[in-house]
Amino acid sequence: MMSQRTIPPISQALKVALQDKIDQKTKPPGSLGRLESIALQLGLIQDTLTPRINHPSIIVFAGDHGIAAEGIVNPFPQAVTAQMVYNFLQGGAAINVFCKQHNLNLVVVDAGVNHLFPAHEQLRDRKIAMGTQNFRQMPAMSLDQCRLAVQAGGEEVKRLHEQGCNTIGFGEMGIGNTSSAALLMSYFTRIPVADCTGAGTGSNIQQLTQKKAILQQVQAYHPSPASAEQALATFGGFEIAMICGAILEAASLKMAIVIDGFIVTAALLAAASMQPTVKDYCIFAHCSEEQGHKAMLDFLQVRPLLQLDLRLGEGTGAALAIPLLQSAAAFLNEMASFSSAQISNRTI
Amino acid sequence: MMSQRTIPPISQALKVALQDKIDQKTKPPGSLGRLESIALQLGLIQDTLTPRINHPSIIVFAGDHGIAAEGIVNPFPQAVTAQMVYNFLQGGAAINVFCKQHNLNLVVVDAGVNHLFPAHEQLRDRKIAMGTQNFRQMPAMSLDQCRLAVQAGGEEVKRLHEQGCNTIGFGEMGIGNTSSAALLMSYFTRIPVADCTGAGTGSNIQQLTQKKAILQQVQAYHPSPASAEQALATFGGFEIAMICGAILEAASLKMAIVIDGFIVTAALLAAASMQPTVKDYCIFAHCSEEQGHKAMLDFLQVRPLLQLDLRLGEGTGAALAIPLLQSAAAFLNEMASFSSAQISNRTI
Repeated sequence: MMSQRTIPPISQALKVALQDKIDQKTKPPGSLGRLESIALQLGLIQDTLTPRINHPSIIVFAGDHGIAAEGIVNPFPQAVTAQMVYNFLQGGAAINVFCKQHNLNLVVVDAGVNHLFPAHEQLRDRKIAMGTQNFRQMPAMSLDQCRLAVQAGGEEVKRLHEQGCNTIGFGEMGIGNTSSAALLMSYFTRIPVADCTGAGTGSNIQQLTQKKAILQQVQAYHPSPASAEQALATFGGFEIAMICGAILEAASLKMAIVIDGFIVTAALLAAASMQPTVKDYCIFAHCSEEQGHKAMLDFLQVRPLLQLDLRLGEGTGAALAIPLLQSAAAFLNEMASFSSAQISNRTI
Repeated sequence: MMSQRTIPPISQALKVALQDKIDQKTKPPGSLGRLESIALQLGLIQDTLTPRINHPSIIVFAGDHGIAAEGIVNPFPQAVTAQMVYNFLQGGAAINVFCKQHNLNLVVVDAGVNHLFPAHEQLRDRKIAMGTQNFRQMPAMSLDQCRLAVQAGGEEVKRLHEQGCNTIGFGEMGIGNTSSAALLMSYFTRIPVADCTGAGTGSNIQQLTQKKAILQQVQAYHPSPASAEQALATFGGFEIAMICGAILEAASLKMAIVIDGFIVTAALLAAASMQPTVKDYCIFAHCSEEQGHKAMLDFLQVRPLLQLDLRLGEGTGAALAIPLLQSAAAFLNEMASFSSAQISNRTI
């Protein structure tokens, strides 16, 4: 299991040298704000004074959810998960547009969609099952399935790393997966599940009230999963478990991990519960409009880069944030220093 | 004068059709957040259902300030303005790095630097004088100089527009120009000048106290400029007056205008006082760390795209935000619709 491997914290060896390099750039100290802290973090993750963003990639994991079959926690029908996978493969989704814009490598993984796809060069078949079980009646998956999913997510990351990728973001598609994420959030943060539950793809007030009531029932039915892994199996989706494994693997490979919105951060909560040091490798792309994401970020004590009121998923927030990582690396590598440009430093 | 020309508000003709197009994209309605409102605004500005970001450009206007010669309102010496212009021309500044990253056209304008530059293909010579006068003793510039500067800024925009540019951001370099901007902000917003005054490139508490006291003296010395133009002449820098003219011209050419930080927004306050409709064409790139910028944005009742704690100027915030405009146009033009991708819409 992933949790047997210990992920080391990022090395602090170059911290002083990196900060000095940042401060010698031709700008008032600190004036590039968050880009300076990202530059520092990238340097520490890669353990170099010249961090690079190589082959940045987004992996979108798709999976179906037993709870969604009931059709009461989600305004869109379950079939949309598979339809959106086809949309990804045809290049018509938001994540395709943003990956194309920023030259990001996009991989789509069938983690467990309730549909059999024909082979496609951009689709990775890691299907665990035709969707999870309905956690109103039983755990979403068996512990074995959960372990398989975590491992598969890690293997997908390893594959990209072997192709030269050192910066990765994750996205998800799965009708019903805000319910999974809310339950995981409540488990890991101990925030009442009603406060973790949001409108997802667009529930109205009445639907939201019903969704909260159902998730409270689910929680009462599974009162105390014994471990992070048990919680992931009980409440998770296959795509969420794979993202958890992907995050753990990416951290162990010392990659920069761009954390997207509510679902991906729920997966991170599970990963960080198994290996708290994974957080060192994470850069938080944005704060989602989905109720609960801000509280997740506060729980993790982190600040996201973007606040654009996104609530789409697919890794869109991560894709939009990666150019800021590239800006951070670029200023560190390419800007002149006060001495190289012969510019006077402060006098008072 | 610019103020004689009336800038029309953006056409609302396509508003319903644009919103419908946005809502038919394969995503929950509203789930792309701020990008959806930017897409709508770009469509309205360009009066089309298929807005494009063509030849996006940044013009950095540089000018020196009489007040800076005293060396008490700014930690860096006045010579840094000219040194940074050379840095721009050599490609070593932050704005160079971000323009290169995002393939933005960068133009540098000598609006009135206290230095004579040799000819350089990337440098536009629009020098009004070797810096402004010290507004502790007299207006920063004559009304004629102010008008020349406003006109020059407009001409620089017109030139890029003729080259095919329809999206433009402005940057500035001018040691001492946060003092100018604070005085202009106080004039246009009626917020006490002390509350408009920030640390600029890095004043400490003692220097900041002194800066506030000096700016209060300046304001008392010039208690009531009779018009926006008079205020611009009294408190402005040449670079600020040129940005004001550039904004007015860009709006009259129906370009999308990306507003950077504290100094550029001060120029916009002047432009919007002359022609309130210019605001329709503006997209606010970021909220600067410079004290006062947030209050400026609140006064204008606008929300910026980025909050990255930047306080560098040079148009860096605008350069970092332009990719988000490109994302907005791209999703509108390139994403599939529910019907084209055969995806089920909401069922409940």
